[in-house]
Amino acid sequence: MATVNRQLVLQSRPKGMLALGDLQLQETPVPELRDGQALGRVKYLSIDPTMRVWMAMDSYLPAVAIGEVMRSLGFAEIVESRHPDYKKGDRVSGLTGLQEYVVIDANAKQSLIQKVPKIPFVSDTVFLGTLGINGLTAYFGMEIAQPKKGETLVVSAAAGATGSIVGQIGKIHGCRVVGIAGTDEKCNWITRDLGFDAAINYKHTDWTEKLAAAVPSGIDIDFENVGGEIMQSVLGLMNLHGRVALCGLISGYTKEDPGLASFAAVLMKRLRVEGFIVLDYAPRFTEAGTQLAQWKMLGKIKDRETIVEGLEKAPDAINMLFTGGNTGKLIVKV
Amino acid sequence: MATVNRQLVLQSRPKGMLALGDLQLQETPVPELRDGQALGRVKYLSIDPTMRVWMAMDSYLPAVAIGEVMRSLGFAEIVESRHPDYKKGDRVSGLTGLQEYVVIDANAKQSLIQKVPKIPFVSDTVFLGTLGINGLTAYFGMEIAQPKKGETLVVSAAAGATGSIVGQIGKIHGCRVVGIAGTDEKCNWITRDLGFDAAINYKHTDWTEKLAAAVPSGIDIDFENVGGEIMQSVLGLMNLHGRVALCGLISGYTKEDPGLASFAAVLMKRLRVEGFIVLDYAPRFTEAGTQLAQWKMLGKIKDRETIVEGLEKAPDAINMLFTGGNTGKLIVKV
Repeated sequence: MATVNRQLVLQSRPKGMLALGDLQLQETPVPELRDGQALGRVKYLSIDPTMRVWMAMDSYLPAVAIGEVMRSLGFAEIVESRHPDYKKGDRVSGLTGLQEYVVIDANAKQSLIQKVPKIPFVSDTVFLGTLGINGLTAYFGMEIAQPKKGETLVVSAAAGATGSIVGQIGKIHGCRVVGIAGTDEKCNWITRDLGFDAAINYKHTDWTEKLAAAVPSGIDIDFENVGGEIMQSVLGLMNLHGRVALCGLISGYTKEDPGLASFAAVLMKRLRVEGFIVLDYAPRFTEAGTQLAQWKMLGKIKDRETIVEGLEKAPDAINMLFTGGNTGKLIVKV
Repeated sequence: MATVNRQLVLQSRPKGMLALGDLQLQETPVPELRDGQALGRVKYLSIDPTMRVWMAMDSYLPAVAIGEVMRSLGFAEIVESRHPDYKKGDRVSGLTGLQEYVVIDANAKQSLIQKVPKIPFVSDTVFLGTLGINGLTAYFGMEIAQPKKGETLVVSAAAGATGSIVGQIGKIHGCRVVGIAGTDEKCNWITRDLGFDAAINYKHTDWTEKLAAAVPSGIDIDFENVGGEIMQSVLGLMNLHGRVALCGLISGYTKEDPGLASFAAVLMKRLRVEGFIVLDYAPRFTEAGTQLAQWKMLGKIKDRETIVEGLEKAPDAINMLFTGGNTGKLIVKV
């Protein structure tokens, strides 16, 4: 048995991008299990934009405390158990934290720890992406967006783990789907492989004109992951009574309260803007997971992963989210 | 018969507050009526914040063209008619424009011109305020807000024509109602006469602390008329899953795209923000008007007016809206 647990603890709250030392590697003894506890070996970590928010401030969850293991979702295998619900070899996903070993106990529910099955021909990491936080986020966000056949849906961070699924759900509902992403390669992926009708690279100087040309009937739904100038441009093209499913504001997570210029469009265009956090939907995760699994098996949802090797690379991986370094789900293999 | 029609035409688009000459007084001949036309003598003009938007830019209505009579709601009496639906002495309200005489013709419906009854003991101006644009705006905005008994409603510009009715509808629904206004006198009026539970004068330096103290259970509904810093402070006190009925952004109408700082609260608190414009509800004006008239007769909605005398004073009156000079409905008596 391993006796050392390597962990990344929050040492200082980042300003802007993560700096060296904001997350500090530490080694602690793997604790002796008590009755009612199980020990999981973390295999994969889910790297998500919301982690940057958790590092900075109280939000929909309290900020991670200084000195605490950094909060994250992850996938683990049970290696030892004195808990009646878990046996060696069981596979779980949930809030493992950025560490090699996680103790599961009475707090399992609060940590969203749940057992997951082995699915043939499907990577374990699917429980962090398409059948995990990103698929669920896309599913419930699209419920808020209420897509109707023939409507135009625009999604930002469209080649990200959530955005790529959002667009594919939009196609299932019969929408015209336009994605906004940051490289031509990403744009090619979402149009050629995922079936988006169009993709706009926002790094091109004429991208707003291209976006306008890609939505000849205007925009009915904005699935917003980014905020800031990208959101502004989308709002400018929205139809009266359009809907904004407000999922993320990643462009602002590394800035001090960037706010939203052109907020007045919400009034003038009578938009409905609804913020949501997937954790609120926990009681319906089984319903959504079942639907997502079906879509995945039918090939209606395809996914891609960017895998970074080594726990110590997790801080770099988090920064990749803000520089657009990943395509699809970003995973750290521990 | 009068032969001269005095009108205020848009001469230049204001920057900030209205300046001398943005609206120019002109005299034109009262036109000879053709068959299918009626002539109304404008008695009262409704002065509303949205007029400042109409002067500046295309919004939910096209901007008023330079050289055109300034758009406004008003109340008029028919003095001559060659239209089968109108006879001398009929009383109408609708988009009369800032002028002494209005020609009513086939465009009457588009101008929202409708005949209104004489109600005993009630001033004619009620059709511009409580039974006009403001009552209707409050009614449909509160439908969006979905108030429930025991919830806390905050309304900004609370001593204005719309805000004062919003708060009273909130009380009818059993909400705790807190108003934000700009003078102690206004605060006294809405609490003592209108039954608001509390009122906060935002000109006091400690107003945000007072607002926090006035909403011990947080804020469930923000009926937003103002935007900017006032809206920011309200958002900071909102409960999870709160609703914002976005009715106006008056603090920004005299500025270039002020945007909204702390927009991220919409995401973190999972708020639903819905912009609305009362004109969208025109097919339901009769329903709402009937309900408002009933509330008014039962004394459940009280109102107050600020009356400015003389068409030529209309530009000053518009500016009063932005300096907080009026309490209740602002009217120009022509």
